[in-house]
Amino acid sequence: MATHSKRIGILTSGGDCAGLNAVIRAVVLHAQTLKWEVVGIKHGTHGLLTSPPQVIPLTCENVDTVVMRQGGTILGTTNKGDPFAYPMPDGSIKDRSEEIIAAFRSLGCDALIGIGGDGSLAILSRLAKQGGFPLIGIPKTIDNDLAITETSVGFSTAVDVATEALDRLQPTAASHDRIMILEVMGRDAGHIALSAGIAGGADVILIPEIPYKIENIVAHIKSLQKRGRNFALVVVSEAILTPEGVTIQQKYFGGEKRLGGIGHFIGDQIADACQAETRVTVLGHLQRGGQPNWRDRMLASAFGVHAVTLIEQGKFDRMVAWTNRRIVDVPIADAIEHTCVVDPQGPLVKTARGLGICLGDGS
Amino acid sequence: MATHSKRIGILTSGGDCAGLNAVIRAVVLHAQTLKWEVVGIKHGTHGLLTSPPQVIPLTCENVDTVVMRQGGTILGTTNKGDPFAYPMPDGSIKDRSEEIIAAFRSLGCDALIGIGGDGSLAILSRLAKQGGFPLIGIPKTIDNDLAITETSVGFSTAVDVATEALDRLQPTAASHDRIMILEVMGRDAGHIALSAGIAGGADVILIPEIPYKIENIVAHIKSLQKRGRNFALVVVSEAILTPEGVTIQQKYFGGEKRLGGIGHFIGDQIADACQAETRVTVLGHLQRGGQPNWRDRMLASAFGVHAVTLIEQGKFDRMVAWTNRRIVDVPIADAIEHTCVVDPQGPLVKTARGLGICLGDGS
Amino acid sequence: MATHSKRIGILTSGGDCAGLNAVIRAVVLHAQTLKWEVVGIKHGTHGLLTSPPQVIPLTCENVDTVVMRQGGTILGTTNKGDPFAYPMPDGSIKDRSEEIIAAFRSLGCDALIGIGGDGSLAILSRLAKQGGFPLIGIPKTIDNDLAITETSVGFSTAVDVATEALDRLQPTAASHDRIMILEVMGRDAGHIALSAGIAGGADVILIPEIPYKIENIVAHIKSLQKRGRNFALVVVSEAILTPEGVTIQQKYFGGEKRLGGIGHFIGDQIADACQAETRVTVLGHLQRGGQPNWRDRMLASAFGVHAVTLIEQGKFDRMVAWTNRRIVDVPIADAIEHTCVVDPQGPLVKTARGLGICLGDGS
Amino acid sequence: MATHSKRIGILTSGGDCAGLNAVIRAVVLHAQTLKWEVVGIKHGTHGLLTSPPQVIPLTCENVDTVVMRQGGTILGTTNKGDPFAYPMPDGSIKDRSEEIIAAFRSLGCDALIGIGGDGSLAILSRLAKQGGFPLIGIPKTIDNDLAITETSVGFSTAVDVATEALDRLQPTAASHDRIMILEVMGRDAGHIALSAGIAGGADVILIPEIPYKIENIVAHIKSLQKRGRNFALVVVSEAILTPEGVTIQQKYFGGEKRLGGIGHFIGDQIADACQAETRVTVLGHLQRGGQPNWRDRMLASAFGVHAVTLIEQGKFDRMVAWTNRRIVDVPIADAIEHTCVVDPQGPLVKTARGLGICLGDGS
Repeated sequence: MATHSKRIGILTSGGDCAGLNAVIRAVVLHAQTLKWEVVGIKHGTHGLLTSPPQVIPLTCENVDTVVMRQGGTILGTTNKGDPFAYPMPDGSIKDRSEEIIAAFRSLGCDALIGIGGDGSLAILSRLAKQGGFPLIGIPKTIDNDLAITETSVGFSTAVDVATEALDRLQPTAASHDRIMILEVMGRDAGHIALSAGIAGGADVILIPEIPYKIENIVAHIKSLQKRGRNFALVVVSEAILTPEGVTIQQKYFGGEKRLGGIGHFIGDQIADACQAETRVTVLGHLQRGGQPNWRDRMLASAFGVHAVTLIEQGKFDRMVAWTNRRIVDVPIADAIEHTCVVDPQGPLVKTARGLGICLGDGS
Repeated sequence: MATHSKRIGILTSGGDCAGLNAVIRAVVLHAQTLKWEVVGIKHGTHGLLTSPPQVIPLTCENVDTVVMRQGGTILGTTNKGDPFAYPMPDGSIKDRSEEIIAAFRSLGCDALIGIGGDGSLAILSRLAKQGGFPLIGIPKTIDNDLAITETSVGFSTAVDVATEALDRLQPTAASHDRIMILEVMGRDAGHIALSAGIAGGADVILIPEIPYKIENIVAHIKSLQKRGRNFALVVVSEAILTPEGVTIQQKYFGGEKRLGGIGHFIGDQIADACQAETRVTVLGHLQRGGQPNWRDRMLASAFGVHAVTLIEQGKFDRMVAWTNRRIVDVPIADAIEHTCVVDPQGPLVKTARGLGICLGDGS
Repeated sequence: MATHSKRIGILTSGGDCAGLNAVIRAVVLHAQTLKWEVVGIKHGTHGLLTSPPQVIPLTCENVDTVVMRQGGTILGTTNKGDPFAYPMPDGSIKDRSEEIIAAFRSLGCDALIGIGGDGSLAILSRLAKQGGFPLIGIPKTIDNDLAITETSVGFSTAVDVATEALDRLQPTAASHDRIMILEVMGRDAGHIALSAGIAGGADVILIPEIPYKIENIVAHIKSLQKRGRNFALVVVSEAILTPEGVTIQQKYFGGEKRLGGIGHFIGDQIADACQAETRVTVLGHLQRGGQPNWRDRMLASAFGVHAVTLIEQGKFDRMVAWTNRRIVDVPIADAIEHTCVVDPQGPLVKTARGLGICLGDGS
Repeated sequence: MATHSKRIGILTSGGDCAGLNAVIRAVVLHAQTLKWEVVGIKHGTHGLLTSPPQVIPLTCENVDTVVMRQGGTILGTTNKGDPFAYPMPDGSIKDRSEEIIAAFRSLGCDALIGIGGDGSLAILSRLAKQGGFPLIGIPKTIDNDLAITETSVGFSTAVDVATEALDRLQPTAASHDRIMILEVMGRDAGHIALSAGIAGGADVILIPEIPYKIENIVAHIKSLQKRGRNFALVVVSEAILTPEGVTIQQKYFGGEKRLGGIGHFIGDQIADACQAETRVTVLGHLQRGGQPNWRDRMLASAFGVHAVTLIEQGKFDRMVAWTNRRIVDVPIADAIEHTCVVDPQGPLVKTARGLGICLGDGS
């Protein structure tokens, strides 16, 4: 197959996660087999807002061997500054999309590979449409809230971290007769909480998709105590909802939708209601960083290779995805149309209920 | 829902792997929510060949908290002694199926949950048919060679171990200008080798599904050396094939299909052909044992709960399975009709080739 | 050697840590080789305040195989309720030492092995003196603040956890141009912070032994930025001191000596002064729990065996200790006379300064 | 203090291990605070045998951030080719020491820091004396067989790996009623085997310092079986001795002192004598590579800084060492005069015996 030599740009956007470097490596290695050039754009679209644009050539030598095993992204990323409504130093908001498009054009790239979550992919897709340049999206997010793909880069490692935290908290809880609360990330989706909670032996799992009542939690913990259990493990998503369907922050602090402190809030509620000693751990950024596990590296490799293959085939505006042992691709628009949250009737919720885990509702 | 109280038996069969205890725990916890009894049968079908049968009652107290985090199986297992052709001490072969059926009947169980790979599920299915007792199968195997289910209990953790081994071998290879060969398990399927090889940055991956020629490997390593790489990582499945389509053991040692030593054989071939220093690591039983990762625990939990649910629903002779975020069930016969090996045209082979990994063939 | 058969009691006291179960196992296994009985007292001295006392016989069967690998303590522990000034439900304070001594006597033990930190060993020593029973102390504390012994059970694993946290935070810091603050435990000793900070590549380490000035931290971070570093890692002990020699809590919150929130306080100070984005992780109880590493298991085993040997030899009121590849024993009084904090002129402080790490002072 | 600017050379020599890069980083960072240059010599003394010598300048930028966390050595190493008796391509042996000395002189370095085990330090010391250049040695070896220093860089991580292997083998052994044999490294010293064996719950530990008799092992395993234990864990050093005081290889294979295969030899002996199923794992190079643990990184950092400090103070021909929380330095000659093997009367042997572990002798 005679492939014309191409130059492709690549950037990482949004919150970082484990596996981004493995995606970058896969893109570069596969491009190299085709004798294509790869240009790394630094700090997401931000790197295109300086003059000259912040770019580095990416070759096998840059990405070989150890980079794949490292967390974070060698390109840097950003999760601030929507190009279409960019916060300027003077406090004003400005549409800077044309600057970014012009800067990207100046790089002479045949296509852009954007690695991001739903927000980033939506922005990149809009930029690509407006600028008329070919785009391929690769899904990454610890939240795993992208539709269509079974899993996104970074999710599996994040759940590793959260599960390991429960493994560490269980023995100290049991030694001190304590109720341990672990606050995990996930934004409006409970995937990390649900998977880690099941895998880590949680007794209570609170997710945004199922509003909780404190009475249900208290009743469950009391039933455990009656059975002789002297401790409990509680996993709390960062954006859980009260029965009124608003977040804790909205109901009690009248403020932003999510702002942290949920673990401590729930811990205090339980301590009061159960007359028990509680301790709260907020896992925070530990979930993002660190060495990707094999699954995130494998997924990242498959996605990176397939993204380059799509460019080779002239198929654009598509997001690569994983589904049931296969790599597929779908229109980006389809993938970001709605986020994928936990199905309250789905298999993992059934699993949790089957194990006797309390999900905060009355079931 | 008025559920009649039931008693169910459970056993683990075949080679052990990470996650078996998490399955057992899930079965017991879900049964307990239904107020059912669970009887653990020890050492697979072997436990039914002694008088009295070797069984233990399983309750929440037995399996709570820490058991899920432990490798192996608290019930013990066996991978010797087909009940239909049982090797007797005097060297004769005997059909002991009726003994086992009678012993199982004596336990007064309403159904049996068998956790096993394709071989074990085939035997249990035949026993269930002959004995007329209801059976549910739960797939487990580090080899991931069961059809229909996207993954089986134990596979993900095994790949963790193999990937970690590559992570350890890479820096010592690079420090000493060596070619490191890692022999992994997987029987006739290359899933462990392929997943770990991609995730662990292997340069060469040999799997049973793609016969290798030593010349191709040598050519690839020489091209790496030309590019400046002073080391290489080679992953070898335990049952790789020569170009004639027979195993190394059959071709060179005239013996059993698989008997170990493949890593060393390939290492010697490479050392001779590349004039390079090689070192061989045989991962062996390290792949079986140890704490299951979150994915195997989550899968195990989902399978265990669903197996009990099937019994509740009166659906039998089915194997639970995982496919694209869903838990399903299929006739056991369908699941064991053929094994699932690596598709030489499949996504992970394409990924490996896209990364420039040599698979031993001429591509 | 004709050893009279003995019965010994054992308890764990104070905050739990990794390796306690390995100590218990070693005591039981060695006692069993001498044909002695071991009685486990539950929940520290609290287990002696109920009638009957909460005790369990400990045999090889209880502690074999897996217990050593588990965090926490199978005996439970307590860090509330000084027997000499016990907080009663009605709010009064009562000396309950005689109750505890009487209960211990009722067990018919020839000696007590107490596993604890300086506080627990001081209380147990006072009880032993008052009650006239033989005591051996085994040092455990994640803080490593016990004098004479080079290290205590639990410290090494705690530093593992803190170092791993820095390994996870570094890539996400670098990806997002952030300053990451990690708050670790250690009470009034900076051992965890200093060891993990050096091992985890911290740029700033604040310990209680060296009062910090925010200006020094800011100057250091700015010099890193000037060198091109886009991120920084800051490790903060839970009880750091202001230049006035009081804790942050005492100076700014007018309250208890330590109450958490230090990480966030320092994070805000740095964010303001450096105009940088900061994120704070409070490691908390993750440092206590979890599987002990080899060093804590080895140390625990050596201590447990030596404690029993001392009883065999009739040597009492001694604490076992580790020093330079040797196991020794010293009078408990000597060991708890003063705590062992970080020496501001010591080798690890010199190491940190040599690496260019800022310790918050002007050096 | 007015320090004259200096240039120092650094090399790693002998088998690689975890923590070498952390030493290199510490040397470079500390040198940088003194405004000194550091020249990295590649592949140990081999890098001085090519023209021009293989060297790279080392600056903070080379070694910052991630290098410390990586196994192996960025300088490469060698364990072939004694400069005083160098194997030439034509099969002859040649003294190439003067070439190496001349090449080192051509670099214009004020001193050399050599990171190595006893063999490497002996060679470097002889070169330094002959060449009249100042040398500082930093001890590294997974075997921990260097005298005077309590521990060398790389040992702690190697024991981590071996202990983790036992953690993985235990559950699969118990599930299948097997005796698991683990062969570990350590050359003529049993430190890895003894530490990992104690920490990993081994039942039998064979070390070179205590000749074993197979009858003792068999008797011990039978006593375990009588107590109800259905499995056993056996750790075997690579250079264990028969009762005649010669290695297995010398006695049975009439060959080299150590050549591998010991694990399998012992496994076969036990299988025959105990009529039990055995499985053998040879840990091999997994023990060398991989991310250093906190202790090796901390030790490496302390050693690297102190080595530079010694050069600053004009103290030479010394090896840095760690002893009881302190960093010291001793004449290299003292450190390599004799190797430090396991003391058969020492604390860890007593610990092992106290736990009831069989060491292969009659005790």
